[in-house]
Amino acid sequence: MPIYDAPVDDVLFLLNDVFHIERYSNLPGFADASPDIVEAILGEAGKYCREVLLPLNRVGDIEGCRHHEDGRVTTPAGFKAAYKQYAEGGWMGISATPEFGGQGLPSALTIVINEFLVSANMAFAMYPGLTQGAIAALLVHASPELRAKYLPKMVGGDWTGTMNLTEPHCGTDLGMLRTKAVPQGDGSYKMTGTKIFISAGEHDLTENIIHLVLARIDGAPAGTRGTTLFVVPKFLINADGSPGAHNNVSCGSIEEKMGIHGNSTAVLNYDGALGWVVGEENRGLPAMFTMMNEARLGVGVQGLGMSEVAYQNAAAYAKDRLQGRALTGPKFPDKPADPIIVHPDVRRTLMTIRAFNEAARALVIWTALRGDVAHRSEDAKDREAADDHMGLLTPVIKGVLTDQGFANTVMAQQIYGGHGYISEHGMEQFVRDARIAMIYEGTNGIQALDLVGRKLGRNGGRAVMAFFNEVGAFIKENGTDAMKPYVGPLGAALGQLQQATMWFAQNGLAKPDNAGAGSTDYMHMFGLVALGYMWAQIAKAAQEKLAAGASGAEARLNARLVTGRFFMERMLPETAAQLARIQSGADSTMALPAEMF
Amino acid sequence: MPIYDAPVDDVLFLLNDVFHIERYSNLPGFADASPDIVEAILGEAGKYCREVLLPLNRVGDIEGCRHHEDGRVTTPAGFKAAYKQYAEGGWMGISATPEFGGQGLPSALTIVINEFLVSANMAFAMYPGLTQGAIAALLVHASPELRAKYLPKMVGGDWTGTMNLTEPHCGTDLGMLRTKAVPQGDGSYKMTGTKIFISAGEHDLTENIIHLVLARIDGAPAGTRGTTLFVVPKFLINADGSPGAHNNVSCGSIEEKMGIHGNSTAVLNYDGALGWVVGEENRGLPAMFTMMNEARLGVGVQGLGMSEVAYQNAAAYAKDRLQGRALTGPKFPDKPADPIIVHPDVRRTLMTIRAFNEAARALVIWTALRGDVAHRSEDAKDREAADDHMGLLTPVIKGVLTDQGFANTVMAQQIYGGHGYISEHGMEQFVRDARIAMIYEGTNGIQALDLVGRKLGRNGGRAVMAFFNEVGAFIKENGTDAMKPYVGPLGAALGQLQQATMWFAQNGLAKPDNAGAGSTDYMHMFGLVALGYMWAQIAKAAQEKLAAGASGAEARLNARLVTGRFFMERMLPETAAQLARIQSGADSTMALPAEMF
Repeated sequence: MPIYDAPVDDVLFLLNDVFHIERYSNLPGFADASPDIVEAILGEAGKYCREVLLPLNRVGDIEGCRHHEDGRVTTPAGFKAAYKQYAEGGWMGISATPEFGGQGLPSALTIVINEFLVSANMAFAMYPGLTQGAIAALLVHASPELRAKYLPKMVGGDWTGTMNLTEPHCGTDLGMLRTKAVPQGDGSYKMTGTKIFISAGEHDLTENIIHLVLARIDGAPAGTRGTTLFVVPKFLINADGSPGAHNNVSCGSIEEKMGIHGNSTAVLNYDGALGWVVGEENRGLPAMFTMMNEARLGVGVQGLGMSEVAYQNAAAYAKDRLQGRALTGPKFPDKPADPIIVHPDVRRTLMTIRAFNEAARALVIWTALRGDVAHRSEDAKDREAADDHMGLLTPVIKGVLTDQGFANTVMAQQIYGGHGYISEHGMEQFVRDARIAMIYEGTNGIQALDLVGRKLGRNGGRAVMAFFNEVGAFIKENGTDAMKPYVGPLGAALGQLQQATMWFAQNGLAKPDNAGAGSTDYMHMFGLVALGYMWAQIAKAAQEKLAAGASGAEARLNARLVTGRFFMERMLPETAAQLARIQSGADSTMALPAEMF
Repeated sequence: MPIYDAPVDDVLFLLNDVFHIERYSNLPGFADASPDIVEAILGEAGKYCREVLLPLNRVGDIEGCRHHEDGRVTTPAGFKAAYKQYAEGGWMGISATPEFGGQGLPSALTIVINEFLVSANMAFAMYPGLTQGAIAALLVHASPELRAKYLPKMVGGDWTGTMNLTEPHCGTDLGMLRTKAVPQGDGSYKMTGTKIFISAGEHDLTENIIHLVLARIDGAPAGTRGTTLFVVPKFLINADGSPGAHNNVSCGSIEEKMGIHGNSTAVLNYDGALGWVVGEENRGLPAMFTMMNEARLGVGVQGLGMSEVAYQNAAAYAKDRLQGRALTGPKFPDKPADPIIVHPDVRRTLMTIRAFNEAARALVIWTALRGDVAHRSEDAKDREAADDHMGLLTPVIKGVLTDQGFANTVMAQQIYGGHGYISEHGMEQFVRDARIAMIYEGTNGIQALDLVGRKLGRNGGRAVMAFFNEVGAFIKENGTDAMKPYVGPLGAALGQLQQATMWFAQNGLAKPDNAGAGSTDYMHMFGLVALGYMWAQIAKAAQEKLAAGASGAEARLNARLVTGRFFMERMLPETAAQLARIQSGADSTMALPAEMF
């Protein structure tokens, strides 16, 4: 069975030494997040993941969810009890507002714990993950009545949430959706239509499920400007707040799929189910995007979580499996062979994964802290800057962390040789599970287009300029000899990213295909620079801590310095190739007539 | 259900216009391979793949092989009848020597048909694929008696073959193997031991299975110099050549695995089974390598075959699926949306896959032709040069074509969005099936090490110098304006590959970890240059044909010129990043103590 230990120490180092969480103490909820409280919470979460969720991961894969003739869906053995423990532990709402029963702690804690949950059991982690997204949307957009009705139960984990966008003929292009809502005159609407690919759409974990449904009010304008967001409970809510009569939404089937078998992917049929508008009529997309952005960050974290658990297992296997001898001569002459971690190509693989994981975790935590500034700060300027950051980095985190996270599960599987391809060790499940994250909540191609086509130019490029300035300033301020191996390569990569940005400005407006053809390369380039910036900050913090005499932690701090150098030498140079591809333009990409494909 | 059409036209263009197969007519068997015969054979093979094998692909995945209590393994419904048709069609031996019933045609035909088989049904294709490898080993190394006993039945497809190397504690490091052979005094040996991961190790397709087994003769020296290759039939052969008594080899179980469910992956227990030496005692490894090299080329072809079928389906879906509008304005204003092939990022993906497929097919065919020179030419110098080529290119083809082939199935799946993740469309099966090719017959890390550690330096670098000279001469001889977009970038990439080679010569001998840490990058760099050379040759042939007035074929020839340019602009620039990584050396890769992983 796979192993997993939550990287609590790494998170604490990032929160305390790299990002200095104490500097955020003016934000509501942060005062309660003292280092010892945070450590205790993360330790508890790690224990729950290791002891409760991890053992259910393979069971969930083998058993999957089952759709019964009466429309019920049952989750794999053990999921219900594990979910009960999750809800009773108060995990759902640790960062949610106290107004609805949450603990109001920094959202960085939620996002870090979500990484742990994903590592231990991705299919399980999706049930709470989607609920947290739905909570965010209701909190921002729903009326006080709806909030009071749904949020306490959702924050408490009694009910889960879903997001209903996709229909058979429309995924990315939501303007084509057909699900219809007819007003009943009493504030409610009758919903009719079919939604597909609804994760956690039907299950037996909770007594109610709260669907957020994008639909078209009868007579609404065509396209995305005619869509409205609705809340549609599986069971209507009684006056006392308890679930009452069954609403007319039913699960027609669940999908057979490549992975995440423990999460039900439902076809939901709305057949006159009652729904209520969330936010304004015909303004469904902006409301949905609150949820979607939350979800996109969460999906990025899935890429990281899968990469982390795959790494931990591959590293353990590489230290254990005896095969061949080191190129520099036997390291364990008394054993029949050396452990395969002596081989440079095996190490290269492990270093590549860990150099990604540690920086990706930093990027996620940094962004979560910025998210709290965006939502909780009293300073409008700070909120604006933080909001810019979120808008810019969300597609990068979603796209890059899931592409690379998946690639890393494949690399980790490779360490096992043939033993990675058989089901027994669980490595192939990681690959199958991780694959979905590149697709849902907007395919990674859509993330790239969002970044290049929308986020770069927004407000005259304010967000991207601020990002470049921040990274550039850090490089300038840290030109010490010790920091040169980090800021030197970072400066070169930043320069290339700026060249690519300029190239789009000059060549993408008149000929948008130039921007489209380079968008995926640009997103990955941006990701490398952002991860490189994280490594430079980690290196700085590690050097300062070592200089201050970090007794007992030296080995781990030095390992960070080595891993950061590996990133700079072996991963960051990719930006040169990306720039060359971008600057080659769209001509050869677009030249063939469609019928030649 | 997935579609598939064998790329017969592309193969004919490569054989006739790029590689001028008629120039090989002095080799035995080539005179029979006239263009019309070849076209007829390929057309027939394509029809069999499309009509017989393709419909069984999903069945095979869902049903898998079954291991019964009595040790029998049954293949999925339809496999047995399909195999019968394969054998009766004479496909197994079309390139095998007429001495044992083969048709003696160029091995390029076999390898091309194997690509078709893989595209249609990879799990099925492995049964004949392994048999062809076993035939090659017996042909070169077995005694006349053993050849007469086994080859006619194997060439005729009546019996299949396997290769038995892996044991639970040893995969890559074959020196550790324990399977024991005790001489019986009559030329036979009693074999005892357990072999795992034996593809096609037990099945119901044929009345006998011929295992080639690597084992250690009682008292043999330790390590690889004490291994011997044996032939061990499942059923002993009667005097009249028919299968007789059951030999003591039995299937203990078959593996649950990520993909290729239609092929049985067996644990084989040898419990006093009778075997006979193939080749010389304690010279098992060289004999096994004849089979292995054949198999490695075949596995490279699997990468290509999976990439091709994934491409065909993704292209069809991209032309059919309506979603969003072109960045340059609606292309089909009368439809609710444009087909997604209008989107630059979708096209970039499709172009990347096809730019790989067409060049990879060329590389495979070129190498197969060189293989025939190595095996059939009467000129010792020609044989030596061709053999050098095979040794150098085999690890490149195995490693690069399977890494990229797998990556391409993932990209093709991505085109489908969520529909690619569910089982219905078959795209996720392609990903699961293609994954194994990166692992078996030597992981791709081992291929890279073989290339850098063994093949580069062999005979004073004769093979690699010949390759560089050939590509360099082509670039020099084809400096026309029309060819500059191809030979220009190719020349730059070749220069970088030469720099990397030089860097290994200067830094890899004293410090072998430098070579090990850069080996995978080098292998991929070599692959890009080799594929770039293929594109340059394809472009030249296409330009010549267009200049000669290729009526009716212009669109396809022009598409090749565009695709070749895409390769040069968007794929080849990766060599710069690879060179930078290689030149960074092994320090940061090797610096961490093992316990820090």
